[in-house]
Amino acid sequence: MYISKSFIPILKNNPSEAKIKSHQLMLRVGMIKQSSAGIYSWLPLGFKVMKKIERIVREEQNNIGVQEILMPTIQSSEIWKESGRYEDYGEEMLRIKDRQDREMLYGPTNEELVTDIFRSSIKSYKSLPQLLYHIQWKFRDEIRPRFGIMRCREFYMKDAYSFDVSDEEANFSYNKFFLSYLKTFKRLNLTAIPMAADTGPIGGSLSHEFIILADTGESKIFTDKRVFELSTDDAKLEKNSLLNMRKKYEQYYSVTDEKFKKDEFEKNVSEKNRLITKGIEVGHIFYFGDKYSKPMGASVDLPGGKKDFVKMGSYGIGVSRLVGAIIEAKYDEKNEVMKWPISVAPYDIAIIPMINKNDNTALDQANKIYLELEKNNIDAIIDDTDENFSSKIKKMNLIGAPYQIIIGKKSDGHLLEFKEVGKDSQKIKLQNIIKIITEQKVKN
Amino acid sequence: MYISKSFIPILKNNPSEAKIKSHQLMLRVGMIKQSSAGIYSWLPLGFKVMKKIERIVREEQNNIGVQEILMPTIQSSEIWKESGRYEDYGEEMLRIKDRQDREMLYGPTNEELVTDIFRSSIKSYKSLPQLLYHIQWKFRDEIRPRFGIMRCREFYMKDAYSFDVSDEEANFSYNKFFLSYLKTFKRLNLTAIPMAADTGPIGGSLSHEFIILADTGESKIFTDKRVFELSTDDAKLEKNSLLNMRKKYEQYYSVTDEKFKKDEFEKNVSEKNRLITKGIEVGHIFYFGDKYSKPMGASVDLPGGKKDFVKMGSYGIGVSRLVGAIIEAKYDEKNEVMKWPISVAPYDIAIIPMINKNDNTALDQANKIYLELEKNNIDAIIDDTDENFSSKIKKMNLIGAPYQIIIGKKSDGHLLEFKEVGKDSQKIKLQNIIKIITEQKVKN
Repeated sequence: MYISKSFIPILKNNPSEAKIKSHQLMLRVGMIKQSSAGIYSWLPLGFKVMKKIERIVREEQNNIGVQEILMPTIQSSEIWKESGRYEDYGEEMLRIKDRQDREMLYGPTNEELVTDIFRSSIKSYKSLPQLLYHIQWKFRDEIRPRFGIMRCREFYMKDAYSFDVSDEEANFSYNKFFLSYLKTFKRLNLTAIPMAADTGPIGGSLSHEFIILADTGESKIFTDKRVFELSTDDAKLEKNSLLNMRKKYEQYYSVTDEKFKKDEFEKNVSEKNRLITKGIEVGHIFYFGDKYSKPMGASVDLPGGKKDFVKMGSYGIGVSRLVGAIIEAKYDEKNEVMKWPISVAPYDIAIIPMINKNDNTALDQANKIYLELEKNNIDAIIDDTDENFSSKIKKMNLIGAPYQIIIGKKSDGHLLEFKEVGKDSQKIKLQNIIKIITEQKVKN
Repeated sequence: MYISKSFIPILKNNPSEAKIKSHQLMLRVGMIKQSSAGIYSWLPLGFKVMKKIERIVREEQNNIGVQEILMPTIQSSEIWKESGRYEDYGEEMLRIKDRQDREMLYGPTNEELVTDIFRSSIKSYKSLPQLLYHIQWKFRDEIRPRFGIMRCREFYMKDAYSFDVSDEEANFSYNKFFLSYLKTFKRLNLTAIPMAADTGPIGGSLSHEFIILADTGESKIFTDKRVFELSTDDAKLEKNSLLNMRKKYEQYYSVTDEKFKKDEFEKNVSEKNRLITKGIEVGHIFYFGDKYSKPMGASVDLPGGKKDFVKMGSYGIGVSRLVGAIIEAKYDEKNEVMKWPISVAPYDIAIIPMINKNDNTALDQANKIYLELEKNNIDAIIDDTDENFSSKIKKMNLIGAPYQIIIGKKSDGHLLEFKEVGKDSQKIKLQNIIKIITEQKVKN
């Protein structure tokens, strides 16, 4: 992509209305544009990042055998009356009347709708477990939307739902998602800590939030540092293996201030392992048994001839929110340098040629490099504008492609000035650059 | 995928509420489920087809250099008041009041919102042309939604928008989409005819509908058969080449009854070339100059120092509608046989083993074949249920994978019974099956 042809509207300065890093950067480099309070359009740069995050979330859902569906955004109020949540949900639910005066709503979550889909099709324990997910827009009518896409009204979310015959089987499903979430966040180059959580309006008896560390986070967190040494590498998609993995994580005290108790923290975590910092919620999983299946009559035939209500859980990841969360975790605000993890970077590399009025040498070289990278499936952005060199570098540091090739006045034959953002530059051949980036892309 | 583990709720008979082929089949094989009037959930089978269509639509947009963005579903009424369409649009617009009592709406189309995005960022002719698209849910509050996803209320659509400095440049943009649409429908194995059309509520002076032939189509069409002999193979992304291509299509009389004039038809089309049949609209493109840019103040600086309003067009493809349109065009209702084009088929091939209580030989062989196909990136579905053989064949004929491997009682060593749906079966080796399918996938 050539900057001159792109729709990447970059601002000279941070917009004054933005109070946190992610909101500032996203407006500054034209990733998003607000269309009304708490509602945003995703411009090409932001869209590319969000789509790459979506792909990773999708792959990790598919890897644990969840089937993808797509439920509509507009729901009938009827099923919400069946579950009893229509009145409970309060003003955050966007209520709508259609032209026939029917009560509709813009779905803030989908427990009711997916339970309705399940009950109309699945009748026997033999068809269980069923794991279903969709990635769809949701709406919550926040009274004071703020912080850009971090606390907005229309947001993009992956929500999954599990249906099982017993508590034990449902626990197995729960743990599959537990694993899948840790793997998803790792691929996004985020360290997410699972924390026992309250269940709020979703309800249920068991719940974990997945929280990533960020100084600017909304929640205060209290954790045992040793949790960072854990990994999911040994976990297999089997009951015992997954249960052991979850226990490994649960042995370390990690909570948000919502659940914090000073004496427990001090009893369970030795002084040198205590970490008190801030974090951002990026995922939340719930087990709630028959909370929805019972009032909505979603039951299956059991082996002995009896019937029972299915045991359900739900599992959310904020896809649009993750764009902001990654910025909060990775953006160096002081130096105005963003480096996207290569798995979700809008471009793999930026090519920055110095362009003077009567000298196109650097641009010509940039074009050749661009074509060669393209042949090797490396997605590059060229700054082909005639702005001054330092403002071009500054702009590319904000856009955040993790690598840069800088082409100054005196090009040094076949050796290029190559830079991993945040590190020193080096002079190397194009073929080596291709090798480095390709290896990083395969690994992530 | 194994049928026994899948969420593919198949009905024994056609549902009585469905009046047209696509609606019947989609309910019958569990591609969709209605959640309320004119609003559907997409179950795994339907979802897979729609996603594959979306991918092709996306690639063909990218191929002509359109940049992808994503605008929200909920819009403010303010911009619609600026363009003057807020009152005009009538009851099909789903109007919403949020908790602050602000007038919002669920976007039925996005001319206003994209013009707002454009005007806030692009100030100079130097940044033109700008071509932007998004693929997003829309809502039109039809008074009588019917025919399943063919005339529903919430639907998935690709809409693109072009911004140019002059009529001539805008015409070039228009012709790029004209080409892109013909290529898109061809990859979906559909013959689409571009027809001069009225512009309706979008407005403007130039418009084409793209219509595919289907006996059950909603529009009567009158066309010169010779239009089917045309191809886009020679067209290049250059002004003259694209103009010539469009002229080639426009030389043949092709209209819907909306524009039909008997004397013109008879004057322009010789008797042997006349075709009167029915069709379905799958795409619509519009050129409307400054209809939105003028009232909304979207202007750019021109070379001489003057300013002018940008010239705009818009370009829609109904992505969810195409799922139904392909069924209308391809489903053999009499014999209950569907054959999806391989580019969008939910599965590449169905494996149908005969399973008896005490004999797993056929299922074991099916499993081995499945794994071998998977290694070769061929997506198979196995019917591992113990239903009787003929009802399994019937079910798979409805699901519509374009190829089948049938494993009866007496398996014939390394020769498999292989069938392209609608053709006779043959006995061939697995490696040859892999070769045939791989070649078809690459070609499409």
